[in-house]
Amino acid sequence: MAPANHQLILSSRPASLITPDVLQLRESPLPALEDGQALARVKYLSIDPTMRVWMADIPQYMPPVKLGEVMRAFGLAEITESRHPDFKKGDKVMGLTGLQEFVLITGKETRAFQKLPSIPFLSDTNFLGTLGINGLTAYFGLLDVGKPQSGETVVVSAAAGATGSIVGQLGKIHGCHVIGIAGSDEKCKWIKDDLGFDHAINYKHPDWKAQLAAATPKGVDINFENVGGEIMHAVLDRMNLHGRVVLCGLISGYTRLDPALASFAQVIIKRLRVEGFLTIDYASKFMEAGKQLGMWKMMGKLKDKQTIVKGLENAPQAINMLFQGSNTGKLIVEL
Amino acid sequence: MAPANHQLILSSRPASLITPDVLQLRESPLPALEDGQALARVKYLSIDPTMRVWMADIPQYMPPVKLGEVMRAFGLAEITESRHPDFKKGDKVMGLTGLQEFVLITGKETRAFQKLPSIPFLSDTNFLGTLGINGLTAYFGLLDVGKPQSGETVVVSAAAGATGSIVGQLGKIHGCHVIGIAGSDEKCKWIKDDLGFDHAINYKHPDWKAQLAAATPKGVDINFENVGGEIMHAVLDRMNLHGRVVLCGLISGYTRLDPALASFAQVIIKRLRVEGFLTIDYASKFMEAGKQLGMWKMMGKLKDKQTIVKGLENAPQAINMLFQGSNTGKLIVEL
Repeated sequence: MAPANHQLILSSRPASLITPDVLQLRESPLPALEDGQALARVKYLSIDPTMRVWMADIPQYMPPVKLGEVMRAFGLAEITESRHPDFKKGDKVMGLTGLQEFVLITGKETRAFQKLPSIPFLSDTNFLGTLGINGLTAYFGLLDVGKPQSGETVVVSAAAGATGSIVGQLGKIHGCHVIGIAGSDEKCKWIKDDLGFDHAINYKHPDWKAQLAAATPKGVDINFENVGGEIMHAVLDRMNLHGRVVLCGLISGYTRLDPALASFAQVIIKRLRVEGFLTIDYASKFMEAGKQLGMWKMMGKLKDKQTIVKGLENAPQAINMLFQGSNTGKLIVEL
Repeated sequence: MAPANHQLILSSRPASLITPDVLQLRESPLPALEDGQALARVKYLSIDPTMRVWMADIPQYMPPVKLGEVMRAFGLAEITESRHPDFKKGDKVMGLTGLQEFVLITGKETRAFQKLPSIPFLSDTNFLGTLGINGLTAYFGLLDVGKPQSGETVVVSAAAGATGSIVGQLGKIHGCHVIGIAGSDEKCKWIKDDLGFDHAINYKHPDWKAQLAAATPKGVDINFENVGGEIMHAVLDRMNLHGRVVLCGLISGYTRLDPALASFAQVIIKRLRVEGFLTIDYASKFMEAGKQLGMWKMMGKLKDKQTIVKGLENAPQAINMLFQGSNTGKLIVEL
């Protein structure tokens, strides 16, 4: 009897966590290979938070998985049969295999699959984690976006996760003071004792925010954020001026709907740069800017409007006008 | 009888809008001048959203105003009496006058007060708005942080306000497609007909989000954000990849407590850079990074841990583990 393929099909969209009706197991026959195709048996599947996002019918950086399709996932597979010029039986490949036992590689999808290099001392599964998507995420996120300087303080959330655990170690390689936030004492022990984080904080301890403050006496320069929500808020409270937040994930919000988190999610999906900004930082350039503004104003290129409220006694109500939307242009109290 | 000074004293901290008990009028005698001091009569007070922030006892970019102190405010004043070498009677000055009729300028505070230049065609009050803090805020925020390119789409909220109205005009000067969001048809008419915005959208109209979509057919490249909350969320939904959000103000949140907004507020106060980030954008550098990671891994500088779940049928629960915090390191399903 020809072997069958077992596949997990996205059957309904999850409301929160994944319930049994969301991913249903289907048995389907293995296809006969055509020229230019190869068949690979999946050995390992990478389980990543982004999968929960792919299940949701919301705007995101890839199309959501459609109902009735094999659930999307990264995986490691071994070619069992090939009529494809690039692959031969026994080759190990990685790519978007999906949650299934066998994946059909067609000419079109070739680019989505890469052959695994054979590197001494490294196991195949390293290519799903440290040398795969998580290592790369940590590498570019921390080094390229966060730009750590020796002596700076880095806080990473989900620090015992696949990405967070690499982020902290890269921080140490670059001479930073590294604090990891994780959800159990055991995880904390691992990242501190084995990975060399300077501090590990269990956010389930009631006094974890005080621990965070104690572990960051010079404030926080880089927040590598994987979690969002309350954890992110607590770290933001410790940030230094001109700090950098590498917004990589918001896992605390993936299993529920929350407009505030949705707004942060857009920052990731669209790779936005959100910069806090205070005019006073530009004091040394005020004169130059003022000249330019004055020129535009005199040339009639800048128009303005003033709402003038008379009397010091009306200043309190004038302040309220700002929040009630009842002024246009510049609001001024005339004495 | 010597003239008295009338001052508005911060008497209690507002819970929401400013109620009569928050700012109380006090009459106090004018001080006799000492050497190195000048007295100025306040002519105009600038009313700015940041005043509401100054009233709150929360971490911010300047110390909060203390209870019992004259409320802090920018203003324009005229020297009435001077024993200060830098100022003479009749000089017009601007600075942090506070909400009061007379301000005493001491040697120490000199730097906080600037003499008003006399520029033809410009009224004194222009120095509180277009050529003052609002013009400078628009200038550096849009040009330096937002970096508008000709042909790009700029959306500004609180667009009929002192800052927003300048932002939109600077956008037009730089060849951008400019959309303003404001809270009344009258305001919209002003910014569109008089200031030359391409579109003006009244967010109090039920279909304003559809109007925003119609007005931004090529998406939004720069969001100059003054409001936060629901308005910001709607604009973020229209942002293009690698768009820029100039986070200047969050006025919708100043009169209430909201942890989500508080977290954005830290982005402003600390001048943070929040960058959305997806590893796939770095695909061309994967090889180089992978080599570096592999080297560190082989040198023992990178450690990792894997949580391996066996069986395709357990993949759904494995996904849930991510959100329940029950794995450490890389989570992998082994088939």
